[in-house]
Amino acid sequence: MPYYIGDVIRDEGTLIARTPEKFREAGIEVRLESTVTAIDVTQGRVRLTNGELLPYDVLVLATGAESRLPAWPGFDLPGVFLLKNLADAIRIKAHLNRSACRKAVVIGAGFIGMEMCEALRERGMETTVIHRGERPVARWDAEFAREIVAALERNGVAFLAGTELRGIEAGTSCPLKVMTSRGPIEADLVLVAVGIAPNVLLARDMGLRIGATGAIGVDAQQRTSAPNVYAVGDCCEVYHRVSSRWAYLPLGDTANKQGRLAGRIIGGRPAAHPGVVGAQSFKIFELETAATGLNEAEALQAGFDPIGDVYWGNAIAGYFGKRKLGLKLLADRASGKLLGAQAIGETGAVGRINTLSAALWSELTLDEIGWLDLAYAPPFGGAWDVIHRAAQRLQRKR
Amino acid sequence: MPYYIGDVIRDEGTLIARTPEKFREAGIEVRLESTVTAIDVTQGRVRLTNGELLPYDVLVLATGAESRLPAWPGFDLPGVFLLKNLADAIRIKAHLNRSACRKAVVIGAGFIGMEMCEALRERGMETTVIHRGERPVARWDAEFAREIVAALERNGVAFLAGTELRGIEAGTSCPLKVMTSRGPIEADLVLVAVGIAPNVLLARDMGLRIGATGAIGVDAQQRTSAPNVYAVGDCCEVYHRVSSRWAYLPLGDTANKQGRLAGRIIGGRPAAHPGVVGAQSFKIFELETAATGLNEAEALQAGFDPIGDVYWGNAIAGYFGKRKLGLKLLADRASGKLLGAQAIGETGAVGRINTLSAALWSELTLDEIGWLDLAYAPPFGGAWDVIHRAAQRLQRKR
Repeated sequence: MPYYIGDVIRDEGTLIARTPEKFREAGIEVRLESTVTAIDVTQGRVRLTNGELLPYDVLVLATGAESRLPAWPGFDLPGVFLLKNLADAIRIKAHLNRSACRKAVVIGAGFIGMEMCEALRERGMETTVIHRGERPVARWDAEFAREIVAALERNGVAFLAGTELRGIEAGTSCPLKVMTSRGPIEADLVLVAVGIAPNVLLARDMGLRIGATGAIGVDAQQRTSAPNVYAVGDCCEVYHRVSSRWAYLPLGDTANKQGRLAGRIIGGRPAAHPGVVGAQSFKIFELETAATGLNEAEALQAGFDPIGDVYWGNAIAGYFGKRKLGLKLLADRASGKLLGAQAIGETGAVGRINTLSAALWSELTLDEIGWLDLAYAPPFGGAWDVIHRAAQRLQRKR
Repeated sequence: MPYYIGDVIRDEGTLIARTPEKFREAGIEVRLESTVTAIDVTQGRVRLTNGELLPYDVLVLATGAESRLPAWPGFDLPGVFLLKNLADAIRIKAHLNRSACRKAVVIGAGFIGMEMCEALRERGMETTVIHRGERPVARWDAEFAREIVAALERNGVAFLAGTELRGIEAGTSCPLKVMTSRGPIEADLVLVAVGIAPNVLLARDMGLRIGATGAIGVDAQQRTSAPNVYAVGDCCEVYHRVSSRWAYLPLGDTANKQGRLAGRIIGGRPAAHPGVVGAQSFKIFELETAATGLNEAEALQAGFDPIGDVYWGNAIAGYFGKRKLGLKLLADRASGKLLGAQAIGETGAVGRINTLSAALWSELTLDEIGWLDLAYAPPFGGAWDVIHRAAQRLQRKR
């Protein structure tokens, strides 16, 4: 008998997450507001804070990831938010509705920080991003990071690179004042999005094997090192087909696949997780941004001799108009095998990256990718697509 | 020394096709308005209508395809057009500019007919399509043909299925009257787009091997059956990776690839055309329409036991909005290998079909496609993409 431990989510009195009810309707016992204090893998028992012991035949750990909590002073002031789950989003929305917010500071320039810039600008907020590094979204290389910063600036977001946080204080013109290495910035709302880490507290207590990435080690059946204990989602590792290594890639689609796979296995149907190739994307204002496979640093670490090149082309046929699309390919010099790709443009970036993800899945070489049969029609691409041109050019460079 | 035989294209006095000049700039002799009457493959000589004999070491046939010419009376009346090349397009445009055209009849419902409906409606023409068959664009199955017809009708195009042509006469209220099995239709402009056939006149005269499809037979190096004679483009066959047969698929991107390949071979660099998977697409008003691989009839003919299913889903994440996208997959029942796919929707159809084209290229199975790692972000797809859902559903049906 499986147990589901989750939250009921209400937004201004309206129930918006019905998952627990759906489980109940399916005859599954749901324990809400229940915290697990310990799991005894020998006895097969879960202990709750109220002292209750729940026995299990099969246990699935889906403890997810936790937002990194910075050690700065003032982090606990009202108006300072994390954004990890639906409840956080509702709290942010309520804050925006309650107060006459005009100024937001986003700390961190990962996916969440970038996507929130767009959401905050849509609410009419003056928005500033504070980033310790030089480039947003580390998965994308400098050529594309530049385009992302340009999109932020075009849309009225101030992007402060190379900026250290010192803390958050009460402000004078606004409720909050963010202290940085470049001086103070006043704000009505501060979003802290400086990354996440797998939640492995229980797993460590249980003595489960933790992988080199810091996430729970699993096999292709999502089994942990303890009998009848599975792990899925942002708390565990996933096999990377391109690096041939276990990686930590906490993404929603991967979590879904791991859950489905564990369900199959527990239900007695054979299956194996075939791994991922690292496909990911996000929208930033008018830009589609997508990547797959390894970047240069990851490729080197996985033992490849990578060679890369950026191709700036047109997402549609030249005689049909101009929609700038950049595609960077990375390949292994010796074998010519594709190792990774990044794309950015007004349109067509995700479609290209998904096509290249399927190519990576099957270990296609640049030569093959240069001949791939793609659906040509002028509104959607040229007779030689950006994929072909980029692959042919990098192939010549090898 | 290669010879290029082509046209100089002028639109209202402006030179718009500069290809001959570019060739001349590259030091290549260009013969314009020159017709080849015979080619002697034993002597290696091309005879022109003016009696001149041009010797060759290497000959490339790029004779293309010809629009099918119907045998109806009235086909030669002014205002009746074919659309095969740039010169045809310019003639149509000039006719539209010259006369106060209001009504157009498009005969045929292939790619050209469909794309011209959109162009004619944009010019404000009342447009009627006359089609002998029941469904437009035969490559797409009934479920999707219905969507295409609906798009035509939503955009004010009358689609007359199951309608036979009897001929074209001079009209009364308009210059032309199209006689059909459903009665006469008056028009200012009639576009005849009832398909194309490979131009193999010279090839037959030369005694070259003609394939079962009626197009010139070539090998993976674009060689014909005569020594030093190559063929490329819409006059020749192409190897289909999914059916493992030679096919006739006259498409612009395939022609480009064949030309590039022949150029490499003639230039002394080893290469082999890896074949196509049959990817194609077109835009019809607000719809993206794309297909790849085989359809059911082709799959049966190639010896497969096909099983197919249509999945209607959302091109973007459900909580982000609704952009209806239909995806039909076809697989081999025994092996589970993907055989083909069709997609239609406001957005995302071409990207999905290109991803599945890469999957077909590598002979992926439905099971693998159900786990493919695709770039998930809510504006571009769900955590389970339409591709995953369609593949998983068809896999369960096997």
